[in-house]
Amino acid sequence: MRFTSEQRFDDGVLERKFTLGEIPGILWTPGSASAPAPLILVGHPGGLPTMYPRLAARARHAAAEGFAAATIELPWSGDRPRSAAAEEARADLRRALDAGEPVDDGIVDRLVLPLVDQAVPEWRDALDALLSLPGIGGPVGYSGGVIAIGLRLAVVEPRIAAALLFAGSFVPRAMFAEARQVTIPLQVLLQWDDEGNDRQLALDLFDAFGSEEKTLHANMGGHTGVPRFEGDAANRFFARHLK
Amino acid sequence: MRFTSEQRFDDGVLERKFTLGEIPGILWTPGSASAPAPLILVGHPGGLPTMYPRLAARARHAAAEGFAAATIELPWSGDRPRSAAAEEARADLRRALDAGEPVDDGIVDRLVLPLVDQAVPEWRDALDALLSLPGIGGPVGYSGGVIAIGLRLAVVEPRIAAALLFAGSFVPRAMFAEARQVTIPLQVLLQWDDEGNDRQLALDLFDAFGSEEKTLHANMGGHTGVPRFEGDAANRFFARHLK
Repeated sequence: MRFTSEQRFDDGVLERKFTLGEIPGILWTPGSASAPAPLILVGHPGGLPTMYPRLAARARHAAAEGFAAATIELPWSGDRPRSAAAEEARADLRRALDAGEPVDDGIVDRLVLPLVDQAVPEWRDALDALLSLPGIGGPVGYSGGVIAIGLRLAVVEPRIAAALLFAGSFVPRAMFAEARQVTIPLQVLLQWDDEGNDRQLALDLFDAFGSEEKTLHANMGGHTGVPRFEGDAANRFFARHLK
Repeated sequence: MRFTSEQRFDDGVLERKFTLGEIPGILWTPGSASAPAPLILVGHPGGLPTMYPRLAARARHAAAEGFAAATIELPWSGDRPRSAAAEEARADLRRALDAGEPVDDGIVDRLVLPLVDQAVPEWRDALDALLSLPGIGGPVGYSGGVIAIGLRLAVVEPRIAAALLFAGSFVPRAMFAEARQVTIPLQVLLQWDDEGNDRQLALDLFDAFGSEEKTLHANMGGHTGVPRFEGDAANRFFARHLK
């Protein structure tokens, strides 16, 4: 892990960009902390340069409550090399959604399964590097982004103690069995009229999670319309489980 | 409105029992308030003597955040005269649930429609009396209890500015059209595995509400298993809309 730039904001939060091998990432740490800060992994759909303003806002909101926050670029997104197969699957999904057609399981599998298989080990490597830094401790939370990545991380990564999942992208049917293996506390966000997702599939997935504590927060509005107050609700969820 | 007893708790909250005509009720007011306190009407399934500990806990939790809270007994419940028709409908519902049978629309109509028609004018009368007291102001929130009563109040009572509804009891099909007329901000609580309710019906009802701001909070556990943290979430919802 190599830091490439840093800046400190008015609110005291320190933002450091880094690379982990060839993968770009960003780390935000609170201005003042007496003990090692619990870490929140900030998920996203891919494309750090585009997503930066929203990610930085979420991270600084979390840092204000004493959390460290970090993210890395997803495979085949942002400044990382593209994958022809991923581009093709993404185009097929876009075509189906634009045409108002039901989204074929095959498209979801081609789009999501390779992404999860590639991304999850990278996030775990990032976790190794991040948790070795001074001032950052466990336990770790995962928040938002591609829900299938959060789901797989919740199953395979024991350092993740709680996850806030955004039911805003398709989950391969094959992963519903994995959902039943999730046992950590979950808060699941659902946009009721998400134009790029299937509401019933999201409700079925919420039902499938094995966690004893799981809460669904469904709100009105489209994919990008998550209400501002859910940021506060996210902080309180992580405060309950990471502090 | 006639006060019949009062006690002050350690936390400064003043609890006053009252009667409104023949209807018993309870009013809780915060220990200290600089301005008139916004009022929350505390709903329940009927039976103040039995429900008292839970209602007092909810009311004092709200009073700690500066809200006044009040409730009145429901028709045909607690110390009020019984109705043979209501008793019969309640027994029919209990039989269907115990037998694991689908609940017939006719039973729901016989149980809920007369209750709503009788209770809602009583709560509105209570509101007149409560809002004329010194130290209690608007706007008003409605919280919990029989969801069909909250629904009707949200439609017909303009002084109610926000409602937290508990999707824990059946709503007559005929009232789904009313749900579309609700426009105030809603927070809807759903217990995912409520043994006395129909999950799909609750989701359909959430979908039907006409409010632009509506949030569904679904949690695990049975009818009485609403997690403690939802009390805090309720306070924050009312703080956003009543303060």
